[in-house]
Amino acid sequence: MTTELEHLAVRLREFARARDWEQFHTPKNLVMALAGEVGELVAEFQWLTADESRSPDPDALARMRTELGDVTLYLVRLADVLGVDLVEAATAKLDDNDRRYDADLYRGSARKAPPSPRGD
Amino acid sequence: MTTELEHLAVRLREFARARDWEQFHTPKNLVMALAGEVGELVAEFQWLTADESRSPDPDALARMRTELGDVTLYLVRLADVLGVDLVEAATAKLDDNDRRYDADLYRGSARKAPPSPRGD
Amino acid sequence: MTTELEHLAVRLREFARARDWEQFHTPKNLVMALAGEVGELVAEFQWLTADESRSPDPDALARMRTELGDVTLYLVRLADVLGVDLVEAATAKLDDNDRRYDADLYRGSARKAPPSPRGD
Amino acid sequence: MTTELEHLAVRLREFARARDWEQFHTPKNLVMALAGEVGELVAEFQWLTADESRSPDPDALARMRTELGDVTLYLVRLADVLGVDLVEAATAKLDDNDRRYDADLYRGSARKAPPSPRGD
Repeated sequence: MTTELEHLAVRLREFARARDWEQFHTPKNLVMALAGEVGELVAEFQWLTADESRSPDPDALARMRTELGDVTLYLVRLADVLGVDLVEAATAKLDDNDRRYDADLYRGSARKAPPSPRGD
Repeated sequence: MTTELEHLAVRLREFARARDWEQFHTPKNLVMALAGEVGELVAEFQWLTADESRSPDPDALARMRTELGDVTLYLVRLADVLGVDLVEAATAKLDDNDRRYDADLYRGSARKAPPSPRGD
Repeated sequence: MTTELEHLAVRLREFARARDWEQFHTPKNLVMALAGEVGELVAEFQWLTADESRSPDPDALARMRTELGDVTLYLVRLADVLGVDLVEAATAKLDDNDRRYDADLYRGSARKAPPSPRGD
Repeated sequence: MTTELEHLAVRLREFARARDWEQFHTPKNLVMALAGEVGELVAEFQWLTADESRSPDPDALARMRTELGDVTLYLVRLADVLGVDLVEAATAKLDDNDRRYDADLYRGSARKAPPSPRGD
């Protein structure tokens, strides 16, 4: 049974093939395209306060949705070209984080914020 | 029926709740965390040639898989907090691209590369 | 008279030459390295509130300084390899912004925030 | 004597003050704006080959120059708001790299590429 992500991946293969764009879809180029789209996504939030970001107005949310779509397309395409299963990779990382960041140790007063970036 | 992405989203909600980290998971913070992980993913490719990126050695591929997992986790969490369906958003964008970048017009000699960034 | 940035650029040319790394310093690779370092810089701020970001503790500020240094090195190196004068490019853009975003029109109640990303 | 970067920083302070935008220029927001601009810069290179990136056509180079200008503006503004001297930070990092990546050890056959990202 094809999952939603596999279906997207198949459509993206066909999209590239039909336009003879596979030559441009090296992982190196695709990760750059992904970074470009994430940049556009970040830009939608840059002037918002934390609270405004929790409740964006309809136009802002529509733009966020568009950029999230672009990010997802390049992420799926990149993973497919590399032969990586995104859900498997994400699940493995989450299992790992569940072990490393013990809930009792990291809750409330024990630690005030998610671990610093260099701790992962 | 729960899809794989919904299952990940539910696990991530629980992960944040158990550690009392929801306060830090504003969309503003989550998109920054996503950008940070995409930066780590890009770094895995920065010194590779296009061909090397197509066939990474096992260690490099393992690191790419790890970073792809991290990127996926933050993307799913961000979308969930915003109430955006990633597959729906991606599919809508792909349908849109299918129309805009007509295969006959954009194949082979008609155009040599995917459209420039400012054309999307 | 050599400016500070030109001095950095010259040192970076020598740094790459001495290690025979010029072959890796294509603009394509350098912009990826820059993106990777900006990702590390963003990560230093991702869990901070706006106020905490205005007054980071000494350790956090030291890490931000380190990452700002890394970003600057790759930005200077990339511009040098491309033959672009960073200060000239920045000044031209600022002159342009001064004209486009008229102070009287964009102050106070006239507009509540810097223009949306798609307006630049 | 004011350096070029200090002059840019002073102009940027005035630019924000005149429009009453200082409230939006928290380091958290500024680093996001920087990330957004770096994303636009990366996008200018994403479909280019390594060689094409070494010799971009005039239009492409003009767009790269524009984005390099935008990146520089936000980098200078962010550093100024944080009170970080960019040239000092970059120089300290370069001195450090000169020591850590000994030229004799890292040249030619000794190492084929700059150190992997996780080694910095």
